[in-house]
Amino acid sequence: MAHLSIIGTGNMGQAIAAVAGRGGHTVQLLGQSDAATTVTGDIVVLAVPYPAVSAVIAERGESLAGKVVVDITNPLNFETFDSLTVAADGSATAEIAAALPQSRVLKAFNTNFAGTLAAGKVGDLDTTVLIAGDDVDAKRDLAGVVTSGGLEAIDAGSLARAREVESIGFLQITLAAGEKVSWTGGFGVVAA
Amino acid sequence: MAHLSIIGTGNMGQAIAAVAGRGGHTVQLLGQSDAATTVTGDIVVLAVPYPAVSAVIAERGESLAGKVVVDITNPLNFETFDSLTVAADGSATAEIAAALPQSRVLKAFNTNFAGTLAAGKVGDLDTTVLIAGDDVDAKRDLAGVVTSGGLEAIDAGSLARAREVESIGFLQITLAAGEKVSWTGGFGVVAA
Repeated sequence: MAHLSIIGTGNMGQAIAAVAGRGGHTVQLLGQSDAATTVTGDIVVLAVPYPAVSAVIAERGESLAGKVVVDITNPLNFETFDSLTVAADGSATAEIAAALPQSRVLKAFNTNFAGTLAAGKVGDLDTTVLIAGDDVDAKRDLAGVVTSGGLEAIDAGSLARAREVESIGFLQITLAAGEKVSWTGGFGVVAA
Repeated sequence: MAHLSIIGTGNMGQAIAAVAGRGGHTVQLLGQSDAATTVTGDIVVLAVPYPAVSAVIAERGESLAGKVVVDITNPLNFETFDSLTVAADGSATAEIAAALPQSRVLKAFNTNFAGTLAAGKVGDLDTTVLIAGDDVDAKRDLAGVVTSGGLEAIDAGSLARAREVESIGFLQITLAAGEKVSWTGGFGVVAA
């Protein structure tokens, strides 16, 4: 059983907390009024929008040493919906990993709309969480939380693949915003 | 009814030809021995690997003026499977559009494995072709070919989105090569 801390109480934070709860894991859900509360999870999900990540790291970075830190962000320029705000050859996850060198940083959940985490389905497909990162044990632990909560998980590769996973999240958001796909649909993964 | 020329007789070229044929369109399929044959299609699919595109453009570029040109490539470094070979903020499609300023260049089919074009299915989902480009009429014409051939088509946005569409193709190939998904599966699109 894992113990998670989820920083951020928006629809993604709540949906991820529910997945972990369904899997029998314990969750510490931390909102903006909990700044003084110590993070207790072994897996810490940064369930805040990308522009808020740097403040979380500034406040809590030292306490995240040794922990698995999960970046779920889609660093879009939400004014134009036409670009990401991170370096073209980088990713939000790479930035976070550089800022938290003592943490085991993963990318996950950014290609999952909150509704598909809650329902466990993308259309008729089981919802699949893509997990990228360099720490194989950390990826396995997070995948265990995801699958015990009724979803599928796929190891999407190294931390470098966060760039491509963020591209998928970006395109999926533009398709939903443009009503080409619904917010309960999008990209599903067919494994077999 | 459209008339397509497909340059390249590999499994992708053949699969795209079959889709067009199912839709009642006519196809000129051109192989390496057809270098002297004039391209007659209004829609020209460059169904060759990325490293072969520049030679096709050098040989046939002038004859492609005014035509819809469809880039299907995934410009991976196939030695490392760890990067694309195009600029991080660009795409193969952007390069081709720059080389063919008088053509109407689209990205399409690169997120579809040949088997999913032939079957019309990704698992239980209808196969969806993502089409990116700046020419709305060209995208509509290609989407018409795709949908008349029994597949789904989604307008994935401007030519700039080819970058993200290539990232999806890249990640999907690494997942299939790593046996995380099958070559008849991968990313499907759930619209509703």
